[in-house]
This record gives sequence, C-alpha cells and structure tokens, in this order.
Amino acid sequence: MILSEKSATFRDHALFLPQRGRRALAGCVLLAAAFLPGAAALAETAGQPQQQQVANFLLDNGMEVVVIPDHRAPIVTHMVWYKIGSADEPPGQSGIAHFFEHLMFKGTSKHKAGEFGAKIAEIGGSENAFTSYDYTAYFQQVSPEALETMMSFEADRMRNLILTDKVISPERDVILEERRSRVEGDPDGLLSEEIQATLFQNHPYRIPVIGWMHEMEKLNRADAVAFYDRYYAPNNAVLIVAGDVEPEAVRMLAEKTFGEVPPGPDLPPRVRPTEPEQNTARTVTLTDSRVSVPSVSRFWVTPSYNNAEPGEAEALDLLSEILGGGTRSRLYQALVVKDRIASGAGAYFSGTMLDSSSFTVYGAPHGAEGLDRVEAAIDVEIARIVSSGVTDAELENAKDRFVRSMIFARDNQSNMANIYGQTLATGGTVEDVQEWPDRIMAVTADQVQAVAAKYLNPDVSVTGYLLPEPTARN
Amino acid sequence: MILSEKSATFRDHALFLPQRGRRALAGCVLLAAAFLPGAAALAETAGQPQQQQVANFLLDNGMEVVVIPDHRAPIVTHMVWYKIGSADEPPGQSGIAHFFEHLMFKGTSKHKAGEFGAKIAEIGGSENAFTSYDYTAYFQQVSPEALETMMSFEADRMRNLILTDKVISPERDVILEERRSRVEGDPDGLLSEEIQATLFQNHPYRIPVIGWMHEMEKLNRADAVAFYDRYYAPNNAVLIVAGDVEPEAVRMLAEKTFGEVPPGPDLPPRVRPTEPEQNTARTVTLTDSRVSVPSVSRFWVTPSYNNAEPGEAEALDLLSEILGGGTRSRLYQALVVKDRIASGAGAYFSGTMLDSSSFTVYGAPHGAEGLDRVEAAIDVEIARIVSSGVTDAELENAKDRFVRSMIFARDNQSNMANIYGQTLATGGTVEDVQEWPDRIMAVTADQVQAVAAKYLNPDVSVTGYLLPEPTARN
Repeated sequence: MILSEKSATFRDHALFLPQRGRRALAGCVLLAAAFLPGAAALAETAGQPQQQQVANFLLDNGMEVVVIPDHRAPIVTHMVWYKIGSADEPPGQSGIAHFFEHLMFKGTSKHKAGEFGAKIAEIGGSENAFTSYDYTAYFQQVSPEALETMMSFEADRMRNLILTDKVISPERDVILEERRSRVEGDPDGLLSEEIQATLFQNHPYRIPVIGWMHEMEKLNRADAVAFYDRYYAPNNAVLIVAGDVEPEAVRMLAEKTFGEVPPGPDLPPRVRPTEPEQNTARTVTLTDSRVSVPSVSRFWVTPSYNNAEPGEAEALDLLSEILGGGTRSRLYQALVVKDRIASGAGAYFSGTMLDSSSFTVYGAPHGAEGLDRVEAAIDVEIARIVSSGVTDAELENAKDRFVRSMIFARDNQSNMANIYGQTLATGGTVEDVQEWPDRIMAVTADQVQAVAAKYLNPDVSVTGYLLPEPTARN
Repeated sequence: MILSEKSATFRDHALFLPQRGRRALAGCVLLAAAFLPGAAALAETAGQPQQQQVANFLLDNGMEVVVIPDHRAPIVTHMVWYKIGSADEPPGQSGIAHFFEHLMFKGTSKHKAGEFGAKIAEIGGSENAFTSYDYTAYFQQVSPEALETMMSFEADRMRNLILTDKVISPERDVILEERRSRVEGDPDGLLSEEIQATLFQNHPYRIPVIGWMHEMEKLNRADAVAFYDRYYAPNNAVLIVAGDVEPEAVRMLAEKTFGEVPPGPDLPPRVRPTEPEQNTARTVTLTDSRVSVPSVSRFWVTPSYNNAEPGEAEALDLLSEILGGGTRSRLYQALVVKDRIASGAGAYFSGTMLDSSSFTVYGAPHGAEGLDRVEAAIDVEIARIVSSGVTDAELENAKDRFVRSMIFARDNQSNMANIYGQTLATGGTVEDVQEWPDRIMAVTADQVQAVAAKYLNPDVSVTGYLLPEPTARN
C-alpha cells in the first residue's frame, strides 16, 4: 500500500496519502503485493527452502524488536515504527500525527536540527519517514558499522526533541504547503479525500492522513507536546532491523540505545469507533478543469487482515488479483484488451489495516468512450465472479503471480522491513507474516466467490467520478 | 425543527431524529416557523404592541432561568434544558445522550421510578422529554399550583438518580428497540442517517442522535455515570418557565429547589470538530421494497443562527420560505400546481443549531412521473433564484407568512418555552429571540439571492434518493 509514490517526495519524509486515483491508474501489481504481509516469507519459501530466521524480542522498557538477517550485501535497514497514526488523533486535531513526523526532524537537546540527516548523507546512507492511518515510521539505510549511530540518533529523538514555538510555526507552514500541493493542487487528491469521508461513516479512516486544512492551521505547541509525551515512547514502538547483522548484536545495540529511554504511560487499547451497518449506494463527483481524462472508482468497506474472519482477507487479496491485478486480470483483459473501451482498469485491496479496510475497482475510458460504459463493463465483470466464481486455473495463476512478485520484492531489503513493521503496527505478529503464504495457498475458488458476493454489493458502495469540465455530468 | 413528529411517540419521552424524508413530504410551514427564534416576540409585536416581559437571571449555582409570563390561562410550562446533545458525545458512545434521557425517568434516592409521572397524571398534567444534537430537554405542563412540585422532582433527578445495572440493562433494550422501529424499520430513517453521515464529513452532526446500533449495544453503567456526573448539573442547564406565574415567584421556587443542587465541574467551551471545505457533489441512494413512492432531497451545509455572518441565517430562512415553504412557494407552485409532475415539493432550513446547519429541498413525483424530471424542475427553480433573485412582493409575502404563522405559534405556550430553550441551548440569548423579528424584517431581496448563490451550489451538495424496488436506479 505504501512506498509506491513519487520517490522525490518520499525522500523528504513523505506522507502516505491514499492516492487512489493515481495508484489506481498506474497498475502496480508488484508494489501492492510487496506490502502484503508474508510476502517475504513466501519469497523465501519459493527462493530457498528454509524458513527465514527472524528474531523477535522485547526490551525491558517494552520496545519490541524484530531482526531480519540478510547477508547478501553489507547494508542494513533500520526502522522505528510508532503505533500512532492519523486514526488515533484527537477529534479536531487532524494532521497532528503527520505534523509530528515532520517535527521529528528538528533539533533535540543533544543534536541540532539537520545533524542526523547530515550524518546519514556523509556516510552515503538514505533516510525517510512516513505517516499512515495506523502508524508513523522512520528509517535509514546505511552500512552495518553505522547502525549504532543511527540507533543512537533515533533513540535521542524519541525523547529529547525541543518543541518551541520557533520550531513549530515554520514547520506548520510546511505541512500546510504540502497539503496545498498534494490535495488542493490535485483533483485526484481532493476526490480521494471526499470518497474516503463518504466511505467511512463513523471510523476515523474517513479523516485524511494529512489532516483537514482548517484543523492543521490550528495545530500548536501544546498539541505537539501532548502528542509527543503520549505516543513517542519505547513501549509504543517497534524496532525493525533488516540486513547484514546478527540478532544478538542488534539486541546489545538496542539495549545500549533505545533501552536507555524510559517507558511512557501505559496506553489504552487502540479502540476506535467502528463502522455501522451501511445500507446505501453513494456517489462522489468532482468536476474540475484540471482533469483531462475522466475516471471512475468504486469502494467497499471490507474487513482487514486484523479483523477478518479466517481466510477472508486472503480471499479478498486473491480476488483483487484475479479481478484487477495487472494486465492478465479480468478487468484489464475485458475492458482494455478485448472491448478496447478503457485505457486502464483494475482492482486493489488494502488489507493491512488495524481496523476495517477497503476494496476498490477503477477504470478510465479509452479515447472518447463514455465513462458510463466503462462503469457498466466493470459491473459486468464483478457480477460474473459473484454468479459464476473464478476458475481453479485463475486462482493458481493468481497465487503464482503473488509468489513471483514477492520473490522480486524480497530483493528489496527495505520492503522486507516494511512488511514486518506494517504488520506489527496493525495488530499482527511475526508469525502472521511467516504463516501468510500458507494461508494464501489454502484459499479455494469458493472462498474467492464468497467474499465477492459478500462484500462487492453495488447497493452498498461508494463510487467516485473524476470529470473534466465541461463534460456533461455522468 | 422539533415537536412536529408523531405525537404518540412524543408523549413517551421521544427522540427528535432528523426525520427529513417524512417532514419534507408533510409540508409543515407552521411548525417549522414556530421554532424559529423570535417567533414569539414577533407574534407579540403583531398581536399586541408591547414587548413581551421576559425575565432572565442566574441562580448562585450557575443555573440560568428564563420566565415568560402568559396569563391567558391557568397553565404553566416547566422545562429544563441541558446543554448536552448527541454532538457532544464521546467518540464511540453514540446514543448516550438519548439513552440518558430515558434513564432520567428511573428512580432516585428520593423517589421511586414512575412516581414523578404518576404525580403528573394525578393532577391532569402532561410531560415529555427530547434529545437533539445540541441539547436534551425535559418538560411538564401543569396548573400553576403544581409548579413547585415539578421543580422539586426535576431538581431531584438532576443529581440523585440511582444508576445500577438493573436499571441500565432493560432500558438499553428499550432504546435498541426504539432504533429498530424508527430507523431499521423505516427506509426514510435509514436514508436520512446516511445522508447526514455523507453531508457532514467531519462534524459530529453526521452521527445519528439515536446512535449507531453497534455502539448503543455497548453503552453501560460506567458510561452513564460518567455522563451524568459531567453534564447533569445546574451550571449546564437552563430553566424555562412559561405561563401564569410571576418572575419573582419563580425565582423563589427555583432557589428553593434547583438552587440547592451543587454546581458540577466547569465544562470547557462546546468546541466540536468543524466541517472542512467541501468540493464534491454526492448522492446517497436507498432502494427498498418498503418504499411505495420515490422521492429526492438535496442538502447543503450552511451556517446556523449561531455562526452565520450577520443576516445570512435570516436570509436563508426567508429563502426556504419563498422557495419551498408551503403551497404558495415557488417549488410547490411550479412542480405541483403548474407542471403537475410532483405530489409534493418544498424546502426547509434548520437554522437553530450550535454549529453548522443545513438547507434542504425535496420533491416526490406525481403518479408515474420520473424522479429525474422532478429533480430537474427543482434545479430550475433554484437556478432562477440564483440568477434573477426574488421579487420584493415575494419577500414581503414571505415575511408576512412568517408573522402569521408565529401568531398562531404564540398560542401554544409550550412552543414559546421551546423557542427560548432551543435558542439558549444553541448559543443564543433572550435578546436574540426578541430582536429576531427586526432582523427578519430587515432582510433584502439581494440578501436572499446572495445566500442562494453562495450556498445552493449543485456541485457541492448531497442528494438523497429513496427508491422502490424494482424501479430502475435513478
């Protein structure tokens, strides 16, 4: 679900917005699959027979540690995941989780602002950070000798940030500008926000990760300090180290650095308001002169890996792959290849969430083709799966495509670290990651049909239309 | 906005749901007008020249008191308004304000459950209670001699309720059943909820007053006790007494009864998350076999009397009257009388809210007429006002209709008490009620056109469709 966006902004402690429109039309099988839990373990199974030797332990102050040895190259990926995302924000303070991600790059009582980044640049490493609904994460990729330095800097900013108005104010201008450019400046971004606000009627996933402009404008020092004191603590964090290191060495370094940080307050369980039963078909239409090609997308609330009935999230993953995962999918073959009415069409499932998730289909017309025809053709393909199911061959192919894309993903060490981090920050365990391939392999064609019938109900859905001016309203 | 629903449920400490569909199609000029602030004072101006002598003072414990003498008959209306409504509920505890309204009819340390009601019945009085987004109110109408007894009972249950599990559990079953009957059992109710959840993307007005079923099911004793301790206190309440009494007598009785209740904690200002800028046209469609006649309604977020620019709320009130208030309105004349395509059509503005409000237009087709034609005809009427404004004659007629309906409203003592209570519970003052007629009279035709142009933008709106099965989707 993440890491797929423009690398330029990603390098600069980026925000992961649900950029549905953009992602949707890009066709990102590989990246979508790369962030599914268990991708790594499955790749391991396929690539080499032994199970990956992952270490998982707690420091005395409650910080969880995962070490994923990977000795192919002298590189190490160091990530700290905080179990705090936009869906945990106090009402009326939307955007503070992402704002805080920015503030983490400011000075501490030990290090001036910019010192950490300068050190990474000096040794030829890279760094980044991102915020989502359920977590905020920071990472660096460096040579193994520099790991202790990274851990030491990261442990320092977990507790010692200096949060003065002089720091807060200009950085607030930065996030406001970021919102102007990513949302107000982008019809896709505007539409995505209002689709999400319509799709979730009660759960805070309806609120944008970057925040509502009018609430961001009011974020202040007191809010930031309260947020830091509450959520930035070792007992609310997961350390992931992947790379050319041994677990015992990581444990020693972690105890020496993060282990010195006192635990924060015990936090209550992350219980957010949940969705009511939904009963209506909704649409959200944005007509904007900046749009050149219209598009349609349809969303359904579904369970996530963390709250689904056994097998349902896996079946939804395979359904998204068969229905709309890349050029061999039903939607692409029918709309783009066979009927030539669409320039793109697909589906995706964002299953790695703490609470409810969503399933999406999308399409954009080819040439002057009507958007209504594209939408109708998508409906036909969904109805076909609901009524007749998928074939065993399709299912095996989909599983195979997952495996192959994961082998590819496995090559990227930071992807590995991400998979574990994202899973652990959304209620999962190391075992969930490792057992996931078996659970995917066990999904039957009947299960895929069953989740399609259960969740892809057109009478309870949200459909987004992005329309150019002056095209007639759809 | 309230008191217009089925009197049967009203008698039984009712909940005021935004039953838009039902109200919409009933055409309730009189009742809508009756609850606008200042209705009483205007009626007074029109009926008899002197300003109404309303007394307004505070008790030592912070309880506000309003006394509205009305000596036409030996009746008194006694109301206590708590400044707590569903929009103040903690996230995830939707429905607790209304649940608490029910619990207020249980036993206290002084009186057994039912004793209060039995006393009222014995003396031939009536009583009721209701919950809305911004307030919860309790009232009795009795003969003046019984006022002290009413105040004494009411003061008692402000502090002395016995909230045991034995009390809580069965009453929770009652509210769940109430929801089943009013929402799940009523397509109008279901659609209204999801329209509201779509219209408000951030403000808690998007959450139903009665609560989401899955959250109501979890309301428990601890929630109820915390809610009672926080919000049920004299410094969070307004006492309204209208009728055959003198202010000084009421003051003495109030000091003797409510005056003995210690103040609760100081409450922070009622600041709820506010709406972001909205950018999209949204629709919400419910297709239900229980629907016999389809209908369409369109909603816009607008300011309320409490947060509008000067004159805008008054102009929105007059706009609703000219556009869709009753049988002489533009919508009714065009769609029902002239074109005969609609069986009903109208508009209303719900201006008495603490935060944002909404403006609504609606229509239902006549016979086999298409809903799309009704919707298009409504759009034409709105566009006409936006482009050409309203005539001075129309405006004067609308003001006149307001006046006349208010004279009628003035005859109902409990309406008077309601107008003051509702205004004071949503940020207004006694002066606001009294000055309102002058502000309405000062509205110009240009102002009416201006608010139509500013707020009734079809590209930023929510349209609801209620469709019978198997009518084709609109």
